[in-house]
Amino acid sequence: VNPPLLHSYFRSSAAWRVRIALNLKGVAHAIRPVHLTRDGGEHLMDEYRAINPQARVPSLEVDGEILTQSPAILEWIEETWPAPPLLPAAPLARAHIRAICAIISCDIAPLQNSGTQKWLRGQGGFDDPKMQAWLTHWIGSGLAAIEALLARRGETGRFISGDAPGLAECCVIPQLFGARRFHVPLEDYPRLLATEAACTSLPAFMDAAPGAQPDAE
Amino acid sequence: VNPPLLHSYFRSSAAWRVRIALNLKGVAHAIRPVHLTRDGGEHLMDEYRAINPQARVPSLEVDGEILTQSPAILEWIEETWPAPPLLPAAPLARAHIRAICAIISCDIAPLQNSGTQKWLRGQGGFDDPKMQAWLTHWIGSGLAAIEALLARRGETGRFISGDAPGLAECCVIPQLFGARRFHVPLEDYPRLLATEAACTSLPAFMDAAPGAQPDAE
Repeated sequence: VNPPLLHSYFRSSAAWRVRIALNLKGVAHAIRPVHLTRDGGEHLMDEYRAINPQARVPSLEVDGEILTQSPAILEWIEETWPAPPLLPAAPLARAHIRAICAIISCDIAPLQNSGTQKWLRGQGGFDDPKMQAWLTHWIGSGLAAIEALLARRGETGRFISGDAPGLAECCVIPQLFGARRFHVPLEDYPRLLATEAACTSLPAFMDAAPGAQPDAE
Repeated sequence: VNPPLLHSYFRSSAAWRVRIALNLKGVAHAIRPVHLTRDGGEHLMDEYRAINPQARVPSLEVDGEILTQSPAILEWIEETWPAPPLLPAAPLARAHIRAICAIISCDIAPLQNSGTQKWLRGQGGFDDPKMQAWLTHWIGSGLAAIEALLARRGETGRFISGDAPGLAECCVIPQLFGARRFHVPLEDYPRLLATEAACTSLPAFMDAAPGAQPDAE
């Protein structure tokens, strides 16, 4: 496998997940920024649509193939570079981690992302208070469900995926950033905050953060 | 592994995905219906919230553990009963199948599901035309992206996952039902329709269909 090329936007939580995973695996890669707001959105231009028909980031180019959708890319990274593992070994434990990732990537992020907000403010006619109520509801209820699942399993926080950060952390850290960006209170999620505190000073996470990206503003 | 118990709602596309996968694997299982609209929603009651803190179907109980989130459950089924495989062997091919599943489970279904529609009609103030515009936009653009990805890979239709139905079909068949239910035109997606035509007469799919469920209405 040659070094992959990641089409990324500094603030996209989905691209951020993949940046963390590549860093945790120590995989050399290049980043090509795709700006989601400049010039009406570089992702909506024909050049990027030819790479990703869904016009979303991230896309990962590798050996002439183009991979899309962060959940699929994360699994591919895990299968292609097994060490260090980003999922536990036991199937039931893997299922619990993947469920946390799915709550974020299915039930929070798609309702929060820029395209959805754009539609709701435009065709949906949402004003600021309605937009805030929408974001608070879906981000809050998703994070609350994750916190409850962690409590049920007796997780104390720190790394959710095991003794080291893994796929859960790839999803949780960008989502907590999104929650703060959209003014969603986090004090009811102590386990998630403990995980975040354990991750943010690690180089793999620092180098993947929006502010460390070539397209950061 | 003892026979799992699936908490299911006949019309939930996420529960339907899991029903197909269990049938394709030939895994004996029991189904416990959770009605999403009767009595204000059985999923919202404390009894079900104790099973699934997110108050969503499906949940899969197995050996005293409770698994949630259909993408995680599908992967667990694949890992627990490897034959017949529901994913191809090669990592890049697996990533393409998982991307199709993710477009459906992340970018279409969560925007279409009953909880989201309820919020939009209630707090969001959506009337029928606005609700229809929302559904048409997100279901249509997701299916169009999948069709474009299949075209790019030179897929002719029939089974997307390989020589037999797999995880892609588990997600595509329920989603096409959802598209029709919400009046989204399908004529621009010939590959997806060919896949559907190849699946619907197979026992694994017939037995998983909403009309074949114990709670069908």
